[in-house]
Amino acid sequence: MRLGVCYYPEHWPESMWEDDARRMKSLGIEQVRIAEFAWSRMEPAPGEYNWAWLDRAVDVLGNAGLKVVMCTPTATPPKWLIDRHPDILPVGADGQPRGFGSRRHYDFSSPSFFEASRTICTAVAERYGKHPAVAYWQTDNEYGCHNTVVSYSPAAVARFREWLKARYGTVDALNRAWGTVFWSMEYRSFDEIDAPVGTVTEAHPSHRLDYRRFASDEVARYNRMQVDIIRAHSPGRPVAHNFMQLFTEFDHYKVAADLDVATWDSYPLGALEQQWFEPELKAKWLRTSHPDFASFNHDVYRGMSKLPFWVMEQQPGPVNWAPWNPAPLAGMVRLWSWEAFAHGAGCVSYFRWRQAPFAQEQMHAGLNTPDNQLDVGGHEAARVAEEIRAVAAAHADADAAVTTKVALVYDYEAKWLFEIHPQGADFAYPRFAFEYYSALRALGFDVDVIPATAPLDGYALVVVPPLPVVPDDFAARVEASGTHVVFGPRSGSKTRDLQIPAHLPPGPLASLLPMRVWRVESLRPNAGERVSVDAKTEGDARHWRDLIDTGNNTGNNTAADTALEIRARFADGHPAYVRRGAAHYFASIFDERLTEQLFARIASEAGLTPHALGDSLRVSRRGALTYVFNYGERVHTVDNVDAADFVIGAREVEPQGVAAYRTR
Amino acid sequence: MRLGVCYYPEHWPESMWEDDARRMKSLGIEQVRIAEFAWSRMEPAPGEYNWAWLDRAVDVLGNAGLKVVMCTPTATPPKWLIDRHPDILPVGADGQPRGFGSRRHYDFSSPSFFEASRTICTAVAERYGKHPAVAYWQTDNEYGCHNTVVSYSPAAVARFREWLKARYGTVDALNRAWGTVFWSMEYRSFDEIDAPVGTVTEAHPSHRLDYRRFASDEVARYNRMQVDIIRAHSPGRPVAHNFMQLFTEFDHYKVAADLDVATWDSYPLGALEQQWFEPELKAKWLRTSHPDFASFNHDVYRGMSKLPFWVMEQQPGPVNWAPWNPAPLAGMVRLWSWEAFAHGAGCVSYFRWRQAPFAQEQMHAGLNTPDNQLDVGGHEAARVAEEIRAVAAAHADADAAVTTKVALVYDYEAKWLFEIHPQGADFAYPRFAFEYYSALRALGFDVDVIPATAPLDGYALVVVPPLPVVPDDFAARVEASGTHVVFGPRSGSKTRDLQIPAHLPPGPLASLLPMRVWRVESLRPNAGERVSVDAKTEGDARHWRDLIDTGNNTGNNTAADTALEIRARFADGHPAYVRRGAAHYFASIFDERLTEQLFARIASEAGLTPHALGDSLRVSRRGALTYVFNYGERVHTVDNVDAADFVIGAREVEPQGVAAYRTR
Amino acid sequence: MRLGVCYYPEHWPESMWEDDARRMKSLGIEQVRIAEFAWSRMEPAPGEYNWAWLDRAVDVLGNAGLKVVMCTPTATPPKWLIDRHPDILPVGADGQPRGFGSRRHYDFSSPSFFEASRTICTAVAERYGKHPAVAYWQTDNEYGCHNTVVSYSPAAVARFREWLKARYGTVDALNRAWGTVFWSMEYRSFDEIDAPVGTVTEAHPSHRLDYRRFASDEVARYNRMQVDIIRAHSPGRPVAHNFMQLFTEFDHYKVAADLDVATWDSYPLGALEQQWFEPELKAKWLRTSHPDFASFNHDVYRGMSKLPFWVMEQQPGPVNWAPWNPAPLAGMVRLWSWEAFAHGAGCVSYFRWRQAPFAQEQMHAGLNTPDNQLDVGGHEAARVAEEIRAVAAAHADADAAVTTKVALVYDYEAKWLFEIHPQGADFAYPRFAFEYYSALRALGFDVDVIPATAPLDGYALVVVPPLPVVPDDFAARVEASGTHVVFGPRSGSKTRDLQIPAHLPPGPLASLLPMRVWRVESLRPNAGERVSVDAKTEGDARHWRDLIDTGNNTGNNTAADTALEIRARFADGHPAYVRRGAAHYFASIFDERLTEQLFARIASEAGLTPHALGDSLRVSRRGALTYVFNYGERVHTVDNVDAADFVIGAREVEPQGVAAYRTR
Repeated sequence: MRLGVCYYPEHWPESMWEDDARRMKSLGIEQVRIAEFAWSRMEPAPGEYNWAWLDRAVDVLGNAGLKVVMCTPTATPPKWLIDRHPDILPVGADGQPRGFGSRRHYDFSSPSFFEASRTICTAVAERYGKHPAVAYWQTDNEYGCHNTVVSYSPAAVARFREWLKARYGTVDALNRAWGTVFWSMEYRSFDEIDAPVGTVTEAHPSHRLDYRRFASDEVARYNRMQVDIIRAHSPGRPVAHNFMQLFTEFDHYKVAADLDVATWDSYPLGALEQQWFEPELKAKWLRTSHPDFASFNHDVYRGMSKLPFWVMEQQPGPVNWAPWNPAPLAGMVRLWSWEAFAHGAGCVSYFRWRQAPFAQEQMHAGLNTPDNQLDVGGHEAARVAEEIRAVAAAHADADAAVTTKVALVYDYEAKWLFEIHPQGADFAYPRFAFEYYSALRALGFDVDVIPATAPLDGYALVVVPPLPVVPDDFAARVEASGTHVVFGPRSGSKTRDLQIPAHLPPGPLASLLPMRVWRVESLRPNAGERVSVDAKTEGDARHWRDLIDTGNNTGNNTAADTALEIRARFADGHPAYVRRGAAHYFASIFDERLTEQLFARIASEAGLTPHALGDSLRVSRRGALTYVFNYGERVHTVDNVDAADFVIGAREVEPQGVAAYRTR
Repeated sequence: MRLGVCYYPEHWPESMWEDDARRMKSLGIEQVRIAEFAWSRMEPAPGEYNWAWLDRAVDVLGNAGLKVVMCTPTATPPKWLIDRHPDILPVGADGQPRGFGSRRHYDFSSPSFFEASRTICTAVAERYGKHPAVAYWQTDNEYGCHNTVVSYSPAAVARFREWLKARYGTVDALNRAWGTVFWSMEYRSFDEIDAPVGTVTEAHPSHRLDYRRFASDEVARYNRMQVDIIRAHSPGRPVAHNFMQLFTEFDHYKVAADLDVATWDSYPLGALEQQWFEPELKAKWLRTSHPDFASFNHDVYRGMSKLPFWVMEQQPGPVNWAPWNPAPLAGMVRLWSWEAFAHGAGCVSYFRWRQAPFAQEQMHAGLNTPDNQLDVGGHEAARVAEEIRAVAAAHADADAAVTTKVALVYDYEAKWLFEIHPQGADFAYPRFAFEYYSALRALGFDVDVIPATAPLDGYALVVVPPLPVVPDDFAARVEASGTHVVFGPRSGSKTRDLQIPAHLPPGPLASLLPMRVWRVESLRPNAGERVSVDAKTEGDARHWRDLIDTGNNTGNNTAADTALEIRARFADGHPAYVRRGAAHYFASIFDERLTEQLFARIASEAGLTPHALGDSLRVSRRGALTYVFNYGERVHTVDNVDAADFVIGAREVEPQGVAAYRTR
Repeated sequence: MRLGVCYYPEHWPESMWEDDARRMKSLGIEQVRIAEFAWSRMEPAPGEYNWAWLDRAVDVLGNAGLKVVMCTPTATPPKWLIDRHPDILPVGADGQPRGFGSRRHYDFSSPSFFEASRTICTAVAERYGKHPAVAYWQTDNEYGCHNTVVSYSPAAVARFREWLKARYGTVDALNRAWGTVFWSMEYRSFDEIDAPVGTVTEAHPSHRLDYRRFASDEVARYNRMQVDIIRAHSPGRPVAHNFMQLFTEFDHYKVAADLDVATWDSYPLGALEQQWFEPELKAKWLRTSHPDFASFNHDVYRGMSKLPFWVMEQQPGPVNWAPWNPAPLAGMVRLWSWEAFAHGAGCVSYFRWRQAPFAQEQMHAGLNTPDNQLDVGGHEAARVAEEIRAVAAAHADADAAVTTKVALVYDYEAKWLFEIHPQGADFAYPRFAFEYYSALRALGFDVDVIPATAPLDGYALVVVPPLPVVPDDFAARVEASGTHVVFGPRSGSKTRDLQIPAHLPPGPLASLLPMRVWRVESLRPNAGERVSVDAKTEGDARHWRDLIDTGNNTGNNTAADTALEIRARFADGHPAYVRRGAAHYFASIFDERLTEQLFARIASEAGLTPHALGDSLRVSRRGALTYVFNYGERVHTVDNVDAADFVIGAREVEPQGVAAYRTR
């Protein structure tokens, strides 16, 4: 567990660098990320490199005892490069190339940019690959930020055709897989296939899904190129990328597979404001964010990181990029930092050392204000540094891996598929996945977030938000593992080619759940359905209904079925929740309270012990320690723990407070 | 009265065709529409036709005793044709051509497409024109779907100039008619005139209206070409087109004039969700649709069809294309079918035989599920088939024409004009026309929907929703017919060139209604006006107010006027409803309740007998039978009818139930 | 004080002109604006002028004793000019040139248009410059209408580069000023700089602000060209332009500096509907507009006009261009007219003489209806003309200048800067400026609206809505003047280059207010903060919070500070309102009531006497007269004034009534 910071020596007079480095060190910071936007300073004119300033910056940091996370600067190609190769600019759905003047203005499929990236990455890696102060690398910056994964350029289309050729072999196979006979969309060769854009009405969903898959693969290909160059010139230094929370236009698992460290950029307040939360929730959690938002992402990236994951950028105060930008409550920077560590983080790195007084992000706080005074976030970081030392002193295993019996399956393709093919305007995969996660956390569980292809052994409970395309071996893995598994609606509803399975949903899950989803319907926000489990347990169904045939074809079977138990029904009698053995299936998205009640019941059946924590208290376990986080407005008292067991805080956990105690 | 179905043999293995045909027949289906999207299978490469599969399909259907509705496949030009003639693609208001990959990607004004259409239509008509199984034809598919009537291509502009030349003769006449002196928009030749698009602020309204008229005429011209080809090669087979509910960018009357059968595609649930209804109404009628929605369209197309109209596509279950797609309540497919017949339909044809497992519409239900099991809609269709046989056996005149004393004037240009020139952001012609229709239906009347040019003789009551451009002879026809006529606000408010009439509105209606609309105002949704008729009758005025001068120029005349009776006033004293003899004028859009009350009163004055049915019961009469439809949640009991007179159902009409009895 | 009217002889048969002129004169109208959209009639073909009709029109008006305001016709270049020089068309943010067919379809930076404008302006000025009937000139029409200031054409970019060169001298200076090192946006030459548009995420804010400044300067340059031509050919005739309320994409002060008369086009109802007001307020003030809306604009243009300002276009009835277009209540045209005079207007000119029956504005009322009958507005104008004569007869100084001790600083750049760099989605400068103005008016004060560069001497109270860039000498001018000054939040928060000041906000105001805004936050609409002044005075803070350090760096200083008094606090203890001597600083936007209470208190401290008037009564003073305007629904009784002192109206002021009495 250690702290880091993001630093931009190029933004400040060289005369400030030494003092900056000294103050970082004395604050308790150990690593410093630099240079991810510095291409125009590294190579001010085509082929003319200027390393002198960067050499000095790295030396200053290294001499102060800091470790450097060196970055490739490819997120911001300079103007001269764009002017030489205008085809670098990505093309929007409107057919227009984007302009220069912000960042991420490149097309992953542009051959010119691929080549230019190779050159600059090689130059940086050669220059600093073996520098003693350089301990880690970051490739590029926040792939996918600002909707930049998908481009509709000629270069992208050309590569898409190759990608299709590789996937389908023949155009006839493609025609069959997509079903292009519908509406005479048949192709006679791969060269007839364009990007699925600008059509009169919706373009073909299989075509669109493949374009999204292709675009995702392009990111992975591009990142792999950078990783290979770095590894060649800087052996032994772990390579990271900083993913951005919920920028999920590409498959983070695939990119992470090529990295050593998966990191993410945690901006809990900005994200709350930008995401799906209702205005009332945005007001309720205004200055703390939702208690499960950062956690969810920690667990996502912990799962895909070979080394312990990091928070590469931690929000230190108000940001500049959300519609509204409130300030965190005092204590939240500390709370967020400890929450990351509790979820297994190796490093929490604050963004940024000092607020810049110019350009797009001048209103983004840092650990220091633009007039170089330590800001609230800076004071809290210093406190965290002290506490890390205390914890490390007390517990040898403070850096242990997080282990748990509960997993949530999270799938990037599912999001793309439901965006392309929603059938109900508010069918929002990330929201539903988050709500399932949140219900598990509110029951006190630590949660692994895993891909659908992951081994399931060792889990007692696996929760699967709507997973349209289920891997062929998934049912077998469930059965082999003995775990309880809960499926959301629409699971198994599509084949890999985005067709309806031959015997209808749940497709490959039919061996677990012998039933047939003979009809579905999407529900307006003002027209949900009631669900009854038993006399005391009922709630609302939202967004969707799978109508389930549990054994005959009438669709109205209400007879007892020995194989498949109907555990809850909608008001009109259709099954709302069915179960067979350890396999559970929800036919709708239930309200938060009902979801939590059902998960609690199923967890108990799976041999786990849920503890209902309410909406503002959260608990996490790592190694020998249990951490308690208070997102609420009232003091929380931890019961049944010896005062002596606390290594952070005490029994009384203040609002926005943190405590950690030895787990007995 | 007969049933049909839409079928896509090209989507299914040939091995399934015979069984499909046999099951259709045994279900009671008599006609099958095919091939409207099969161009890429008919002509897989330029000039290379493949008829073999289609020959076999037609034979299989014919051999099973089914009649085929053969279609021209022009709604989906194949990729090779687009690649050869990119000018086929329509151009959007953004100046960009639309892409290939969905449907209707053609420009009605493209000479290349006109020629290609001629060729494929001739080929299909020659091949199947005299096939014994081919009994009917359909041209293209759903003109106007996906906003495809108006294109801004160079080809369209070139033809628009010719169209203007034909309409105005000289550019000076055009300049005068439009009033281009305003803002120096004068043209020196027709060649200077562009499409009315992309302007700094709103383009000239007369220019825009003429562009809409032109685009509409292009559809009629294109359809006429197809009809002529079919008639030349397939004499004696009626030609149809399937209009789509409320896709009113072109004048359906003009296209229907060239057809034998006007048909429409009835998707009551999808349409409710997509149209103007408030969210509360969308929830209330979620699984039945609004009781007057399908009826209104039946009456629209009955009026313009030479032979009895059809429902070419009847919703059989959930659809895929609305923002939310609920499932119909059990019984609704039957109810909708009988409602069509009660309104005079010759055929109700379900879309589609079997749900497709692939492509854009894979979530659109059919009579059968993708795994080929009969779905709810299929079971209900079978019941309808049985009932048709019972009715036909009992009543020789079950197929009689619908006759009524009540008409509603419906006008396509009115919609375009108010869209272009709304003056109030929520002045929505289709909504107002529907509300007037709905009030008449709630009073128990059967309603003819007629164009403003139709004869009025024989009607006791004609209701005219806001009709800005009134035909010159309309007043004379009203007077000659002796009918009562109710005009909505803004009637007679514009000349044919979209100017204000010389003596102000109601323009040519002044001979019926000697008054002067000296001022108008549009009303915010949260700022309506109260209207009082008498002590017991009052309501709300919405959207609009015509301020009426009933005889002098002060605009505040409240004195009695022997010629013009003021029957209701707004709270500030202005006349809200005036009448002279049998002519009635509403100065605003009144709320539904007040509209119904006033229509009831006027109907009584016209010698008719209104029966208030409430919001969920509807009654229709055809030949000797009266049909009752229950859209509500409670059983309805039909009074004063002998049990023996029922040929469908009985006195107790269940929710979503249908009854039909001999009219005494 | 005199009345005018806007007239379009080219729209009407020449046979009507003499009668029109006679009726204008007899109604009391003295001046007539003509020809601002008549280019296609002046020059029907390239280089072929037709002055005959205009000669006759001017003669007819002159012979009737009317004075002509002659216009240059450049707002509507004719089609032949566009076809010859397509580069005249402005280019949108989408990269597309706008189309011909409405108005203002020109790019201020187009060299072709600049030259064509020179030619037509010279031709008109030569022809009519010395005509005895031509008394005034208007340049173009409503610069900025329909968002036409900013264009993204190649011509604009070319001129922008020159503008940057002139501003910064070297590209290095520009790089430093903007801070382009951020995200590698550094430029190597001015020729590398494009328009700030189409970028992947927000373009650089300094770049955007400079583009807005450049575009504003282009308007001033263009107008100056016209003014110079007119002055050369028509010496002694004042030159005006008609600004449009709140079309503030350019700096009205800069354009007005080149004019003799600043005029504006007053459409109180249309503006209310289009602007920021909540729907409830739009309904409340539906037919009167907000009582401070026209006043605010009168005071804006009075301040920048060398001769007394005019209302060049006064709304006479319903307009056509707002989402909803209600009719003014009877009396409002008179009230608006007198309100203009009370605020110092030299002329109120109605738009338009007669409603046109054709083209875009056919639903825009005039003084006469299209059938040439005097409309309500015409009757009210006649009454105003009579009253002017009565007032003039009674008071020699009725035309005196307005004088007051209260000023409001209004700044165009502030609006652009906050639009570009809002930090909170609803941070709306014009709204906040209006709310401050409205609070002052509700306290009974007359208000001067001044630029930030204006002298402050003579004022007792100056109110400064959020002013991000404060002139260097502002603090010194405040101190020299001795005035009390109230600053809104974010004042002094940016340097001229849009950077954060070196010692943080309030930047150059620190000499007045020795404090440091160490953090800011924007507030969601549903998450404001409470503010307490004292036991009886509290309210809501909205939109924004400046967190103020009043003397140490903790940000939580609550200790008394002898230099800086904390007069109000937020619920969490942070200062909400601080004061030092006569300088006051609000750390947030307070609700209307609290704002008014604080202004009242400060005004009293400044030696002024506030009179709380409530929300619908307003009072203005000019020369010897006090005017009272009743926007409400109830009669208002003026107390303590002798009946004999009234020159308009009497003690009992009816709803929508006006009174004027001798000020004692």
